[in-house]
Amino acid sequence: MGRWQPNARGRLAEAAMELFTERGYEQTTVAGIAQRAGLTERTFFRHYADKREVLFGGSGALREIIAGTLVGLPEAVAPMPAMGAALESVAAEFHESHAYARRRQAVIAANAELRERELIKLASLAATAADALRQRGVGEPAATLAAEAGIAVFKVAFERWTASTGRRPLSQFIQESLDELKAVTAGA
Amino acid sequence: MGRWQPNARGRLAEAAMELFTERGYEQTTVAGIAQRAGLTERTFFRHYADKREVLFGGSGALREIIAGTLVGLPEAVAPMPAMGAALESVAAEFHESHAYARRRQAVIAANAELRERELIKLASLAATAADALRQRGVGEPAATLAAEAGIAVFKVAFERWTASTGRRPLSQFIQESLDELKAVTAGA
Repeated sequence: MGRWQPNARGRLAEAAMELFTERGYEQTTVAGIAQRAGLTERTFFRHYADKREVLFGGSGALREIIAGTLVGLPEAVAPMPAMGAALESVAAEFHESHAYARRRQAVIAANAELRERELIKLASLAATAADALRQRGVGEPAATLAAEAGIAVFKVAFERWTASTGRRPLSQFIQESLDELKAVTAGA
Repeated sequence: MGRWQPNARGRLAEAAMELFTERGYEQTTVAGIAQRAGLTERTFFRHYADKREVLFGGSGALREIIAGTLVGLPEAVAPMPAMGAALESVAAEFHESHAYARRRQAVIAANAELRERELIKLASLAATAADALRQRGVGEPAATLAAEAGIAVFKVAFERWTASTGRRPLSQFIQESLDELKAVTAGA
């Protein structure tokens, strides 16, 4: 067992994001990330399976927040308001700074494989949400449609938030996108 | 140049689907597909880049139908009704039999890489639709939200159609899913 390194995970994530931004994702190695963070490769692999996991390691936590919120809401809450509450929980509990999220989006946008991986992550969030809605007794196709529409709202809101100055919180972008989806599907 | 083979493309697709179903996708080779179809590998590669393209070669045509319909609609048509019209065009113009579509879904459902490829195909349809909506003068985030919600409707409707007996046409499943999305986003 190596010595415990204070906030090694955060230092590795920050170092990785610096190198992805400076050199590009493809050109960045785990050895380079560890060196930049002043840590060993062995410490890196104690926190992440590979460099891609630095970008996508948060998706398990996102799924837990979404499923936990949906399952815990009162029975009477309808599917789309339930999805709204789940996304609000994500905004409240997902502690990624605007600056970090913005750089992460830029790294992903620049690489086709990472863009595909991001789509797969979003699809896994939608599948998790649909499962949790069915657990709430929502039938099909309502469960899948509410889940997919809700995750589309999250995707749009997150992109708009990262493209913004960061003065307005993510939760405002989520509320605006939910309202816009409602207007658009009503035929407005 | 080889001799022209009557309906070689259709025979290769049918042979591929038979083998994917019997042996599994991974275990099927291009040589095996060509042999089953009574054609050469050279003929196969005149029609498809690889065995995966047998399953996904139709996505360019889908994108053209969606974009063509959206761009051609009268200006006054709102974003979500426009998406509905685009999906109706897909149902009317995309000539894949229920039996073929059903087997294709089963092959894709059984393979993680193919499920990912299907997600990426659906995301490309949503991106195409959002582009076409913006060409119609629809702003953001309305264009992306209508496009993503519309493609979610298509995904749900297509899955329900392939899981059905095939007596009801795809267009009915699309209309039902559009109605359900409207109800769900209205908070019902």
